[in-house]
Amino acid sequence: MDKTVRNKVNIEIPEYIEGYGKVKPYAGAFETEPTGNKFAPKIKAFKNGEEKILKTLREGIEKSGLKDGMTISFHHHLRNGDYVLNLVMKEIEKLKIKDLTIIASSLTKAHEPLLENIKNGTVTSLHTSGLRGKIAEEISRNGIMEKPVIFRSHGGRARAIESGEVKIDVAFIGAPICDTMGNMNGKEGVSAFGAIGYAMADVKYANYVIALTDNIVPFPLNDISISMDYIDSIVEVESIGDPTKIATGATRITKNPNDLLIAKKASEVLIATKKVKNGFSFQAGSGGASLAVCKYLREYMEENDIKGSFASGGITAYLVELLEANLFESLLDTQTFDGEAANSLVRNKNHIEMSASMYANPHNKGCVAHQLDLMILSCTEIDVNFNINSLTASTGVIMGAIGGAPDTAAGADITVVVAPSMRSRLPIILDKVTNVITPGDTIDVLVTERGICVNPLRGDIKKLLEEANIEIKDIRELKEEITKITKVPKSNEYEDKIIGVIEYRDGTVMDTIKQIKM
Amino acid sequence: MDKTVRNKVNIEIPEYIEGYGKVKPYAGAFETEPTGNKFAPKIKAFKNGEEKILKTLREGIEKSGLKDGMTISFHHHLRNGDYVLNLVMKEIEKLKIKDLTIIASSLTKAHEPLLENIKNGTVTSLHTSGLRGKIAEEISRNGIMEKPVIFRSHGGRARAIESGEVKIDVAFIGAPICDTMGNMNGKEGVSAFGAIGYAMADVKYANYVIALTDNIVPFPLNDISISMDYIDSIVEVESIGDPTKIATGATRITKNPNDLLIAKKASEVLIATKKVKNGFSFQAGSGGASLAVCKYLREYMEENDIKGSFASGGITAYLVELLEANLFESLLDTQTFDGEAANSLVRNKNHIEMSASMYANPHNKGCVAHQLDLMILSCTEIDVNFNINSLTASTGVIMGAIGGAPDTAAGADITVVVAPSMRSRLPIILDKVTNVITPGDTIDVLVTERGICVNPLRGDIKKLLEEANIEIKDIRELKEEITKITKVPKSNEYEDKIIGVIEYRDGTVMDTIKQIKM
Repeated sequence: MDKTVRNKVNIEIPEYIEGYGKVKPYAGAFETEPTGNKFAPKIKAFKNGEEKILKTLREGIEKSGLKDGMTISFHHHLRNGDYVLNLVMKEIEKLKIKDLTIIASSLTKAHEPLLENIKNGTVTSLHTSGLRGKIAEEISRNGIMEKPVIFRSHGGRARAIESGEVKIDVAFIGAPICDTMGNMNGKEGVSAFGAIGYAMADVKYANYVIALTDNIVPFPLNDISISMDYIDSIVEVESIGDPTKIATGATRITKNPNDLLIAKKASEVLIATKKVKNGFSFQAGSGGASLAVCKYLREYMEENDIKGSFASGGITAYLVELLEANLFESLLDTQTFDGEAANSLVRNKNHIEMSASMYANPHNKGCVAHQLDLMILSCTEIDVNFNINSLTASTGVIMGAIGGAPDTAAGADITVVVAPSMRSRLPIILDKVTNVITPGDTIDVLVTERGICVNPLRGDIKKLLEEANIEIKDIRELKEEITKITKVPKSNEYEDKIIGVIEYRDGTVMDTIKQIKM
Repeated sequence: MDKTVRNKVNIEIPEYIEGYGKVKPYAGAFETEPTGNKFAPKIKAFKNGEEKILKTLREGIEKSGLKDGMTISFHHHLRNGDYVLNLVMKEIEKLKIKDLTIIASSLTKAHEPLLENIKNGTVTSLHTSGLRGKIAEEISRNGIMEKPVIFRSHGGRARAIESGEVKIDVAFIGAPICDTMGNMNGKEGVSAFGAIGYAMADVKYANYVIALTDNIVPFPLNDISISMDYIDSIVEVESIGDPTKIATGATRITKNPNDLLIAKKASEVLIATKKVKNGFSFQAGSGGASLAVCKYLREYMEENDIKGSFASGGITAYLVELLEANLFESLLDTQTFDGEAANSLVRNKNHIEMSASMYANPHNKGCVAHQLDLMILSCTEIDVNFNINSLTASTGVIMGAIGGAPDTAAGADITVVVAPSMRSRLPIILDKVTNVITPGDTIDVLVTERGICVNPLRGDIKKLLEEANIEIKDIRELKEEITKITKVPKSNEYEDKIIGVIEYRDGTVMDTIKQIKM
């Protein structure tokens, strides 16, 4: 048996993982400091008079020098409406290029055709923040990839690219507006998706960058988010995607009464911490009760004449409403969650676009996530040490994403997890989560409809909640209470094969995902 | 005697220059292609909760780890009103740090206190675009520096930094507005100077970046030109400079009747080339007749209902007037030349800020200078091969700047030099210029009040001017004609010591400047 090591969240991981390499075990949220220098891509001179706009995507891929074994990157701002990845992979398949690594900021159900590319050896390695649907099932249950999928947070991805831990040979960027020299932004045009924050690291560190666009405009574009000096080639396509599919259930405020109850309780917790005051900053993750917290906070802010500093993260129409109602000074946006918010980015000067590195990279000279006062997160599971899972189901199947959770939880003064006490008659609190995504040391409060738990590390918060007469339960006791009602969760049986590696934002390994025994 | 080599403009240069290194001789405007990778600065994690705003400049310098022999950088957007360089050098002198290299985007007469730092060994190497006044005199006549001053164009500086040919240990950035985490721009606050394009390369590639500001605002700043993830420390100072001193004579339109005549003729030349049509692009360098060309072009554009694409370069109030009169689609700005233009950068969406790399770096994936149709340049001397000088006087003393001249001349379709036929009874046309700054291969037309000359390489332009009945003179004949009126210029006598190295934008050596024999 291979040598193993126990990391800071008490998970046993091999010292070396085939298809991944040597493991640096997770050592605590801020314990692993960066070493060395940033990655340095090749210098390339664009020849005066040369044509940047190529006739076909094929020409672009050929010009890029893409060949077997190389690494390509994509960004997922168009989410379920993205056409770019599939267009590119179709062309790559025709060119019979094999053994590629894909570094995607995330993968959605729009990318299911990728399954074929994996099965036929075009793609042999995936790096992503999230994975769902058929590809996830096939990897989880049938181990169809030799190499484990590497999961990173949004900040972790920016860090891995900047540090050269991953090296991008060719980056493919979907641009809703792009001038003839490659100046672009994400917020104008029929396929506008808003902020283009994830792609900013790709263009700076990739050796070759191809912009795909359905909207070429004369040089120079006025509002430049990514500038021409990073773009090698431009390819016009019929459409880069369907922006109406960006918004999904996870990005709208819930109408579920239980979720609303949890959100209400969470807002009471936040208020009790006395952090909801003039100049406070706030982020709510997507999904379930999380976004609904804004709704209750808003009431309190209006009643008490409170104006926040900034709200950040994936930006929704609801946050724009708060901005325009003058309840926040500004929004900081790396990924926009709906068309209304994309419009706001054009219209509102205080709706600020940022790169994923500025948003959440732990190894730069300061990121927005570390400026947060309050963070609200959803989860699929939480354990008695407050470690949370948002990536795998209780069955062990991959079905979610890391997103910005570990980044914001580490950075925010107070991180509150909101979750129903049970889902499909399975308890939310466990002795051990299926996989650890965000370490318990960075999670401060759990709010369920059946009770509120405070991480014992945060006696200060406990005291404030008690002062506000908020009942607090011990997380182990709440677990027992819930487990009496629910089924006892079956423990999963796994093969030895590691099919996923969960990196913490600093590049250490938090957990591994094994293939499910069928 | 050291080995020498003749470069493409027929200048003999040593193969190795003490204090500079191995020489790559200039080989033609686009002949030298880049090799290797970009420079990779150290990765540094800003610790969560750490304070970025330091109490004193001294603390910032100490924290940066600056020590003997290192390299520091400055940008000159505040031009004659800049306080930053002097403030920093005063503090460094107190700390007794010696043998520093200064990489300045340019040096102005505001920086004369630097002379003391040179004399006492605090500064032993200078890299700049321009040099004037006492420092220039002392270096030119008395050879007070051991190492030659290295002169680069604006594009050449961005290239040298990006490629790591120069490595910046500590960059000092003057910020008229800066939030508590280091997000900044150049266009807001009492010391606003407009675009902050030169500093963008510094922050990306320096190992340590200190922002000096007289205007700290709450996080997050809305309009971010340089983002927090590049800034290590912030130091508050009483004032970073006096923006009323940015505008100088060189940045206003001349009232000199001879210059106006030359400008009028130059505009007729441009019109005759048939390039002044809808969608054309244009830049005029600062000084003398150059900016006045805009005035005559404007009349033609209004009469003929022509709207240009973009004007670029240092942006003046007059160009803003053209933009707001709807005569150009947009302005591309790396350095703003007066307060009115700085306001425009805030007000006008189509007044676009750009980095020096995007402006003029020959070794990136496309720069604005290469998109120019028409370029107007001033010069102090031109030779019969159309090589121009804008850096040294006929006496051999350094008294000017390279600026963007070699960048835009190489990039523009048509480059027109405007100059009076004589200055102080010295002829403008010579057999050999004192120093070559911009190679003749990239200069197309010379316009003087006594005649117009076309570079023999541009038969196409000659034909168009003839069609427009514009009289063309052979440059050698015009030289003879002028020299009959003027004094015969004395040839300078030099010591062997090389006190300046003139790099072409691609990093090759165009010329050297020797110490004047007294």
